[in-house]
Amino acid sequence: MTNQTLILIQCRDAVGLVATISNTVANHGLNIVTMREYVDEAANRFYVRIVCAGQAEDNDRLTADLTVALPEGATVVVNPPEQKRLAILVTKEHHCLGDIIVRHFFNTLDAKVCCVVGNYDTLRAFTERFDIPFHHISHESKSKEQFEEEVAETVETYQPDYLVLAKFMRILSSDFVSRYPGRIINIHHSFLPAFIGANPYKQAHERGVKLIGATAHFVTDDLDQGPIIAQDIKPVNHSFTVKDMVRAGKEVEKSVLSKALRMVIEDRVIITGNRTVVFE
Amino acid sequence: MTNQTLILIQCRDAVGLVATISNTVANHGLNIVTMREYVDEAANRFYVRIVCAGQAEDNDRLTADLTVALPEGATVVVNPPEQKRLAILVTKEHHCLGDIIVRHFFNTLDAKVCCVVGNYDTLRAFTERFDIPFHHISHESKSKEQFEEEVAETVETYQPDYLVLAKFMRILSSDFVSRYPGRIINIHHSFLPAFIGANPYKQAHERGVKLIGATAHFVTDDLDQGPIIAQDIKPVNHSFTVKDMVRAGKEVEKSVLSKALRMVIEDRVIITGNRTVVFE
Amino acid sequence: MTNQTLILIQCRDAVGLVATISNTVANHGLNIVTMREYVDEAANRFYVRIVCAGQAEDNDRLTADLTVALPEGATVVVNPPEQKRLAILVTKEHHCLGDIIVRHFFNTLDAKVCCVVGNYDTLRAFTERFDIPFHHISHESKSKEQFEEEVAETVETYQPDYLVLAKFMRILSSDFVSRYPGRIINIHHSFLPAFIGANPYKQAHERGVKLIGATAHFVTDDLDQGPIIAQDIKPVNHSFTVKDMVRAGKEVEKSVLSKALRMVIEDRVIITGNRTVVFE
Amino acid sequence: MTNQTLILIQCRDAVGLVATISNTVANHGLNIVTMREYVDEAANRFYVRIVCAGQAEDNDRLTADLTVALPEGATVVVNPPEQKRLAILVTKEHHCLGDIIVRHFFNTLDAKVCCVVGNYDTLRAFTERFDIPFHHISHESKSKEQFEEEVAETVETYQPDYLVLAKFMRILSSDFVSRYPGRIINIHHSFLPAFIGANPYKQAHERGVKLIGATAHFVTDDLDQGPIIAQDIKPVNHSFTVKDMVRAGKEVEKSVLSKALRMVIEDRVIITGNRTVVFE
Repeated sequence: MTNQTLILIQCRDAVGLVATISNTVANHGLNIVTMREYVDEAANRFYVRIVCAGQAEDNDRLTADLTVALPEGATVVVNPPEQKRLAILVTKEHHCLGDIIVRHFFNTLDAKVCCVVGNYDTLRAFTERFDIPFHHISHESKSKEQFEEEVAETVETYQPDYLVLAKFMRILSSDFVSRYPGRIINIHHSFLPAFIGANPYKQAHERGVKLIGATAHFVTDDLDQGPIIAQDIKPVNHSFTVKDMVRAGKEVEKSVLSKALRMVIEDRVIITGNRTVVFE
Repeated sequence: MTNQTLILIQCRDAVGLVATISNTVANHGLNIVTMREYVDEAANRFYVRIVCAGQAEDNDRLTADLTVALPEGATVVVNPPEQKRLAILVTKEHHCLGDIIVRHFFNTLDAKVCCVVGNYDTLRAFTERFDIPFHHISHESKSKEQFEEEVAETVETYQPDYLVLAKFMRILSSDFVSRYPGRIINIHHSFLPAFIGANPYKQAHERGVKLIGATAHFVTDDLDQGPIIAQDIKPVNHSFTVKDMVRAGKEVEKSVLSKALRMVIEDRVIITGNRTVVFE
Repeated sequence: MTNQTLILIQCRDAVGLVATISNTVANHGLNIVTMREYVDEAANRFYVRIVCAGQAEDNDRLTADLTVALPEGATVVVNPPEQKRLAILVTKEHHCLGDIIVRHFFNTLDAKVCCVVGNYDTLRAFTERFDIPFHHISHESKSKEQFEEEVAETVETYQPDYLVLAKFMRILSSDFVSRYPGRIINIHHSFLPAFIGANPYKQAHERGVKLIGATAHFVTDDLDQGPIIAQDIKPVNHSFTVKDMVRAGKEVEKSVLSKALRMVIEDRVIITGNRTVVFE
Repeated sequence: MTNQTLILIQCRDAVGLVATISNTVANHGLNIVTMREYVDEAANRFYVRIVCAGQAEDNDRLTADLTVALPEGATVVVNPPEQKRLAILVTKEHHCLGDIIVRHFFNTLDAKVCCVVGNYDTLRAFTERFDIPFHHISHESKSKEQFEEEVAETVETYQPDYLVLAKFMRILSSDFVSRYPGRIINIHHSFLPAFIGANPYKQAHERGVKLIGATAHFVTDDLDQGPIIAQDIKPVNHSFTVKDMVRAGKEVEKSVLSKALRMVIEDRVIITGNRTVVFE
């Protein structure tokens, strides 16, 4: 990517934005290779992701020139940090963590796993085999407030760009979530039709669903209702036991979270209201 | 299928059922080609679908011999009617009806569409092009009871095996549903996560889902909660308008209903509690 | 679409093309709603599909202004005809024709089926039920040259934009194909791994494939090797007979051709060398 | 699985086989839970996989009784070894190995990875992190015969049930393959349409395919033509570079090999001629 410039812009929609942006970019000697834009008409917002060949002489001036040329309040990011830092939060299930760490080890994640925090100690041995720090912070015999404070303190020593809830089974408070707006990614099982409450796979089995799904989303105050990044399903049938459904669910959770992370890491995801724009 | 015998059995689970059944079948000179069985352990029920090469000399005696040999209360069906009769109920949307009628016309449905009943007249022209009777029974200016009575009367003159709700947008009463237990098939949009209430596609769009789904199910008293026969999804993305999502939804509804009908028509679907066993 | 302008451009790649284009468009008072572009680096070609809000006062001047501003040899199309005209060529199989004609009947094809030409008479009855002209042109007792001449003569009286080979089982000569460059669309079964020669489904069955596929492509001189527009698959398994595989194949052929047609009809497909760019 | 008995049978097809088998099984006090059978009519062969509740008092006698009762030449296996031993052969690519080893580490593979053999040393560090022996056997400066002899010698010290070619990029000789009939599993990229020869992804990119696939198969003399166990695809589009296609290909290879291994490990795969029966 060293010979490319990535530009991310969002602003109020207006006539002539593409002309304005492309002129400014051309004035800095950059040639647009791909440009993906989206207008959220309901919100009157314009979003664009531009990959240019070449590097501007001065990224700060490019940023400033774009900001001046665009409607007031525009957000312009030129070359966001390439190597995102991830803090992974886990409980006991390993399928998502295993996938992330192996990709990290082989340098195909394009991000750095800076630490793993578990409210159980179960996944320490695996994590430490890859020389990644593992912190066991139990949620037991303490208030949620105190537990989250400890997690936040630990996590923040690593200055992560994103917190990834890789089957982290504690519900986070609004207070905690609001510290990391648009920076917490969760993976959640999903079903057609949906089941709420305990034992969703048991409910799904009793109902005889023919699909098992998963949803990766940003975490907001509203539990499991944040902007969706990626979703997928696997077919199941009547011969699947609850255990078989759980296994199928893990496969799809792993693969959906992996895709969502790649999209986020490559700066392809923009949050607009309670939706995402994903420039695949 | 003329040189094959299809046997469907359900009964209380017990030791040695397969031996009992296969001995009885062999005594009638039939050779088992495929046998698919399922035990619902929670319900202690045994289900089997057997295809045999050849025809028994006397199907009634085969049925009787099997019934005697099996645990009390067993249901045994030998060679269910091959040509099922379908009554299709519609409102205004054509995508599912179009698919069913074209398959019917080209003899690939393996069932007879005996009539179409619409609470609007919209789909008459299409239906009548294929020489299929169309009955317009408006739901307006009459009670639900009276409306359903008219529908039932009309439908019953055709003695259908199944009622197919091919985007029929009226909610049927328990009374109506209970006349056709396990014989009404509906197609329903579904989403991950699910949306309840009006304008589900608008809700899905606002939430930014990445999948649009559909569920074909038997209709029971509990609205949209009957045993699921088939489900599928199509991927969507942020660039889909509500209208695009509706179009994607129609494609998947059409294809899921088509698959569910084929499974039912080929006697591959068994209802067990609130689930189905589908011997694909 | 009446309040939108669609612009399709292809030209040699160069620095500043997006700026040039967006300036010219803005000068004509149009606001870009979506812009999808692609650079084929190997071929040094630039392709863009732009949807603008509003209508230019003078489309011819807009076209001329864009052409002048762009590198020599640019192709600029402003508002291509919305209602494409399709001539459908068939043999005996109905699954693709049925799908196309039903969509046409219900105005969801966004194109006009102007005629159906069959080298057998099999599909006349179906076609004529929809008041679409059907021409039976037998290939028997005449040279390929003569047969194709008759087809061309018939087809051309309808001035179609595209010829759709909806399971047309005659191989077209280079001469015929070269009359309609980029305007003949075919649907072809495909397998993993591929099978060449007679009875591909029999071969696929003997090999025990687990997927059945289909490919919609533009027809070029090189049989079945033209630019691919759309592909999809359906899973199969060992229990599928050859006949079952054929049926599964038809479902996927129908759905892939339908998707390809929609992409072409909405001017989303551009041929670049032997590939397509599909701006979904 | 300790309270279940798994029975695998294949024999010449004949009338009454299911009766014969189920009687014999019942005589040993076992109750059939699931029974999946398949008749290869072309080959006149019968295959069955039976799961029974309970354990026979004497498995050897059960095996003998079944063998006597069945047509001559029947193969009967009662309770095949549950913990299969796998020897993994690799070159430099890590995606399949990573997946297998992580599943192994967390005990979800239901098999034992007894060793990894690489013709390069690239994957040693990863393998050894999991305390699995890694053997580097270079193919350089020696004959294929000698290389394969060294591989065989090394592998055989571990007495593996299966050899898994997890992106092993050397072509194995007939001699080598014939030592392990039905015991070598390979993962192979596949395309629609297929590309043979060097750089398949480059060819696929040039052709503009819309799907990237993978095929897991048993290795036979006929290179890449052995019985297929599992296949799957991922959609791609014109914006995918060759590198993007390779990445998509790796995801699908990993997931297809993983599925094939699970099927083999659970004794769900039977080879019949050049096909497999997979009792999913």
